[in-house]
Amino acid sequence: MSLKNIIALMLIVMALSTSFFAQAQPHPNLILTQSGVEKIRKNLGSVPLFDDTVQRVKQEVDAEIALGIDTPIPKDFSGGYTHQRHKLNFLIAQKAGELYQITQQKKYAKYIRDMLFQYEAMYKTLPVHPQERSYARGKLFWQCLNDSNWLVYMSQAYDAIYNTLSSAERETLENNLFRPFADFISIENPQFYNRVHNHSTWGNAAVGMIALVMNDDELLQRALYGIEDDGLDLNARDNDGGLIKVAGQKAGFLANLEDPFSPDGYYTEGPYYQRYAMYPFLIFGLAMHNVKPEMQVFEHKNNVLLKGVDALLNLSDADGEFFPLNDGQKGMSYYTASLVTAVNIAYHYGEKNPQLLSIAEKQNKVLLDESGLSVAMGIRDGKAQPFVKSSINLTDGQNGEQGGVAVLRYGNEDLTLVFKYAAQGLSHGHYDKLSYSLYEKGDEVLQDYGLARFVNIGQKGGGNYLKENKTWAKTTIAHNTLSQNEQMHFNGKYETASKHHSELYFYDDANKQVQVVSAIENNAYPGTQLHRTMAVIKDDGFEKPFMLDIMKINSDSKNQYDFPYYFMGQVLSQNFEYESPKVLKPLGENNGYQHLYVEGKGQPSTDSTQFSWLGNGKYYTLTTATKKSDELLFTRIGANDPQFNLRRDAALMIRRKDTDDTLFVSVIEPHGSYSPVSELSLNSSSHIAQLEVVHDDKNYTGVSIQDVKGKVSLFILANSDASPAKQHQLEIGGKTYNWKGSYHFAQWY
Amino acid sequence: MSLKNIIALMLIVMALSTSFFAQAQPHPNLILTQSGVEKIRKNLGSVPLFDDTVQRVKQEVDAEIALGIDTPIPKDFSGGYTHQRHKLNFLIAQKAGELYQITQQKKYAKYIRDMLFQYEAMYKTLPVHPQERSYARGKLFWQCLNDSNWLVYMSQAYDAIYNTLSSAERETLENNLFRPFADFISIENPQFYNRVHNHSTWGNAAVGMIALVMNDDELLQRALYGIEDDGLDLNARDNDGGLIKVAGQKAGFLANLEDPFSPDGYYTEGPYYQRYAMYPFLIFGLAMHNVKPEMQVFEHKNNVLLKGVDALLNLSDADGEFFPLNDGQKGMSYYTASLVTAVNIAYHYGEKNPQLLSIAEKQNKVLLDESGLSVAMGIRDGKAQPFVKSSINLTDGQNGEQGGVAVLRYGNEDLTLVFKYAAQGLSHGHYDKLSYSLYEKGDEVLQDYGLARFVNIGQKGGGNYLKENKTWAKTTIAHNTLSQNEQMHFNGKYETASKHHSELYFYDDANKQVQVVSAIENNAYPGTQLHRTMAVIKDDGFEKPFMLDIMKINSDSKNQYDFPYYFMGQVLSQNFEYESPKVLKPLGENNGYQHLYVEGKGQPSTDSTQFSWLGNGKYYTLTTATKKSDELLFTRIGANDPQFNLRRDAALMIRRKDTDDTLFVSVIEPHGSYSPVSELSLNSSSHIAQLEVVHDDKNYTGVSIQDVKGKVSLFILANSDASPAKQHQLEIGGKTYNWKGSYHFAQWY
Repeated sequence: MSLKNIIALMLIVMALSTSFFAQAQPHPNLILTQSGVEKIRKNLGSVPLFDDTVQRVKQEVDAEIALGIDTPIPKDFSGGYTHQRHKLNFLIAQKAGELYQITQQKKYAKYIRDMLFQYEAMYKTLPVHPQERSYARGKLFWQCLNDSNWLVYMSQAYDAIYNTLSSAERETLENNLFRPFADFISIENPQFYNRVHNHSTWGNAAVGMIALVMNDDELLQRALYGIEDDGLDLNARDNDGGLIKVAGQKAGFLANLEDPFSPDGYYTEGPYYQRYAMYPFLIFGLAMHNVKPEMQVFEHKNNVLLKGVDALLNLSDADGEFFPLNDGQKGMSYYTASLVTAVNIAYHYGEKNPQLLSIAEKQNKVLLDESGLSVAMGIRDGKAQPFVKSSINLTDGQNGEQGGVAVLRYGNEDLTLVFKYAAQGLSHGHYDKLSYSLYEKGDEVLQDYGLARFVNIGQKGGGNYLKENKTWAKTTIAHNTLSQNEQMHFNGKYETASKHHSELYFYDDANKQVQVVSAIENNAYPGTQLHRTMAVIKDDGFEKPFMLDIMKINSDSKNQYDFPYYFMGQVLSQNFEYESPKVLKPLGENNGYQHLYVEGKGQPSTDSTQFSWLGNGKYYTLTTATKKSDELLFTRIGANDPQFNLRRDAALMIRRKDTDDTLFVSVIEPHGSYSPVSELSLNSSSHIAQLEVVHDDKNYTGVSIQDVKGKVSLFILANSDASPAKQHQLEIGGKTYNWKGSYHFAQWY
Repeated sequence: MSLKNIIALMLIVMALSTSFFAQAQPHPNLILTQSGVEKIRKNLGSVPLFDDTVQRVKQEVDAEIALGIDTPIPKDFSGGYTHQRHKLNFLIAQKAGELYQITQQKKYAKYIRDMLFQYEAMYKTLPVHPQERSYARGKLFWQCLNDSNWLVYMSQAYDAIYNTLSSAERETLENNLFRPFADFISIENPQFYNRVHNHSTWGNAAVGMIALVMNDDELLQRALYGIEDDGLDLNARDNDGGLIKVAGQKAGFLANLEDPFSPDGYYTEGPYYQRYAMYPFLIFGLAMHNVKPEMQVFEHKNNVLLKGVDALLNLSDADGEFFPLNDGQKGMSYYTASLVTAVNIAYHYGEKNPQLLSIAEKQNKVLLDESGLSVAMGIRDGKAQPFVKSSINLTDGQNGEQGGVAVLRYGNEDLTLVFKYAAQGLSHGHYDKLSYSLYEKGDEVLQDYGLARFVNIGQKGGGNYLKENKTWAKTTIAHNTLSQNEQMHFNGKYETASKHHSELYFYDDANKQVQVVSAIENNAYPGTQLHRTMAVIKDDGFEKPFMLDIMKINSDSKNQYDFPYYFMGQVLSQNFEYESPKVLKPLGENNGYQHLYVEGKGQPSTDSTQFSWLGNGKYYTLTTATKKSDELLFTRIGANDPQFNLRRDAALMIRRKDTDDTLFVSVIEPHGSYSPVSELSLNSSSHIAQLEVVHDDKNYTGVSIQDVKGKVSLFILANSDASPAKQHQLEIGGKTYNWKGSYHFAQWY
């Protein structure tokens, strides 16, 4: 046997043995799979959206490869260079892994390999990150959360090139980088890792992903079930003021999957954080599906993960932007990368809902894996159908028993009411029981302020939460709900707030002309009950659907009630007189009031106070039943805001003093339009002549709306029994009404 | 001859005589022509955009015909029903006339005929309009201006059905409606009719249009040359405060064509009013072209009418919205109907510029006449080319000798500087000599406030100009220019302002990397000379082009100078300390200062004061050379505005007290971007390390900009001789610079 032949034989043996190992633990197996990759390669060039995405990702990755690898010594907050660079590194590495598998071009594998070894060389001696603000500092980033992001993505990159590395190389990486990394974010930071919180979800997924690649069962157990003895203090708090540990609560990925999602797939922190948390949930769910299908993670809790995708998509306006419930940054939408993941996975591993394809079409990119291929093929084959958002009522709480969020929609999102009667929503929750926001198509009519933060913009508090998030954005007065005696709900105390939730009274969207949701809050102000009923009504006498709002208050004490409307737009007209102050002063001292300037102060001149504004080229009128003694305040955000961290947005506020039981009844009526191009002003006046409370006692509240043509609409609410079968009878003004169920709606001329 | 035969013969004779009359004065001949209509009919069904427009207009007109004709007794301002109805009547009648000619369906002719006779029956006894606010009240509308609109459109409708009417019918309409109507808006309202003003242009065109249809030479003379003896008072004023009569000034259409347009086609009132005035200019111009081609109206003053269309299109941002110079409502754009007319006529009767076709494509509709057909055929045949807007310098004044407006653009409208050194602009002019606004693509970076009016929105002052237009929008402090001693330019006196204009010092856009405009104002503040030089510079060390601003002031007295920057967006950061007041107070008592709240007050901490903001997802930094004794004020519009007529927009203002000669030098630097979807913050910091005035005397001003990498850019301006051929030599810091021409630009590390 010649030397040449011996070498050839050795090469064959090596090839066979690699193939043998690959059989034992085939890679890629985490997100990409061998069969998936084969299918992708076979279809390359014949699936336009997939091919487009490959091209765009190639351009992006090739440009980074050309720039060279940089793994700088960590020093910055999220706005700074080192943060951005390390973030880009893991994002690009994950994509390079996909490209390597799809194109089989070695440069991608080499890029990942070189980067991983640079990290390996650095990590061994890397101290904790120098920025000290976080309750759980990372090493590459200022918080463990971002380190976990890194590991979730790098696990995928590592899996993609696993077979290209020698076992010695793998051992080096695993012993010096991946295992210490996983230990650091888990065992060394249980206050981060061992909670039910979106941070922990990232941590759990990170440990779990690398566990699956390394086939490390101990780490996988830690990922799924948490750390048994974490030694955490029951009083410790995170940076957002949230409790670290709740007695008796389980930890780990499965606990995180169990607890924050309601059976409907609503995530208790709200859509902005659900969007963020969906990625680790789904990507680790998919990894488990691929590597440990017997654990049935996707099917866990009655398919809650895939239901969560549907719930999240339904928590967006007509432009796909998520409602900014709790801490939510406006503008975040289903165009974001984690929603590409969510939509692709939900389509492919769910029931292949063709409506999801139309969202993917708008996103105009897919995942570079089997699910992305499947979506792109569905679109290519013309299967896409419009994603139709209807009215929906989503429960909150692990068992769906902690209130919820209702979204009433009329038509093709012509009017959308978002009504929040949920639980506190963990540390990102706002003190805004029974608050709401209103949208016409994608435009805000009455806003939820959202968060006070410029995410990742270093100049604004390092891109982190600003002081004003606590002093303004979370406060009760910042929301379209009731403030009593200038206090926050639950006195702004997180522990108290976390013990309670509002209760659904009833939800009924069966009649599309009159859709109603009603809920009760008993704990926000002890001794005071808030019962709010909101309806979206379409009446022939009105051009557009309108919103009816009945807030019934029963209190055992006399209080001051403030009831604001955060209208979006420019003041047009009102039917009351008011005085304009010469200088602007804050409305109060604390609880958010210190941030409101008073721009006008008046009193009602009739029982039906009206106020109109123009926003986004459309007209809106508030008609509200007022008392002569009410105060009407024009307010504007911006007082005590020296850093200009808040938007200078306006509100009209009704203030009622020295009152126990009372009622606030309002209609928000969208009408007409204005175009600066045609300069045509259409239907700029309200169609409501009078709004009147015609009955109000313990059992029933009756409201009549008379339009300008004399047509009367009567809405009667049964206050104490909402059961659908219950028969009711009530006499109002000499006329007797009989009906069955929670409410009665009647009209006449 | 039987009776039957006699009748037949009579019918033939009548037909012949109609035909004879039609030969003598063929109709339609005003806008539509017989040959044009033939061509349209022949091409129906084969020119997509034209056919689409016919279909849409048909739907619109058919819907109105189905509603029936209403000619209510006039009573409302522009926001009200009677105003809107009469306006819709003439718009629809004009379109019905086109449809009659194109489709030959009699229902359209009947609709117009019936409507005209309803007006005829009403007009005979119609008093002057009951609303008394106008200096020239109409009959159908509250001002003669709108009555003139009516006649301009109705003349076209009448022309279109002229041949369908008996001569007796025509006589009735002409004697009872059209001639009295024309007399009313001219002879009975010379203060409206006999001026050089956009109002008069409408009046002249109205009288001229109906004159051409009726073949009435006396009226035509009145249209072209005005009323000889108008008996007007030389001190009388209109509602905007404009002088009615200027001694020795000619009147009539030709005078209006002569005077307000500069030879470059710039209209002295600004683009918002040019857009409005273009319609009567062009439509009557076209009517004259058709009926009296020998008068060569289109060719008048070296094709100024068609040049005007080009000038107007160039006075728009990347979204097609007109710069709101003087009184201009933001949002008005080349999508408005009068610009469809302008673009179609300019294409067909001009040089068939294929770039105009791309604008017509965006407008997505055409005129239903020969010019519209021509445009639609050009688009169908693939002739459209992108409309490229480059830098342009437009003179103002009848002979182009009264200053002007320069627009410096870099790239594909990546940065657009609008610099105004024009004449006062008649009664719609603002007191803003040497002011500017800045755009990145279609987004405002530093704004011109525009007007204070909600055009046609009845709730806001009847849709007319608001008090705040005078107290705020027209004032000097409302603009990005210099205010001295809290006074307005020319003390806000219209007569004085109208006598003066700024002077161009030089304009040079030859080098696309350094484009410069410079102008001098000697009269705004007697005894003080303002010399402002603005450059748009693209340097390799910067991601985007930036703007350099050198305002040199020479005064024979010590003054307070205020220099504001009306930035659009949210405050990010600054390198100076400031105090935030506990209560907001107005900055001053009058001249616009009473509308500004002070939100912060500080002083520079370095010679290069920096201030950054975030607007429309993009970052901007102002770097300005300041003195230790300067005050820096954060202001916000909204004080003394009880009706909420003003937008709550912000500014940073530099205040320099007790100073005669001085210099304000600034750079506005766009950089980076932020997306709430990706949450990526890119290039959010300024690239400028220092901005320094390195030389300043009577003859030269030198400014150096040092970037963060150490590269220095030096800009030297020759202050007293801008001739291109002049040789200059200057020593700065031991180094000698030699150059030829108005400025020198050099760079080194």
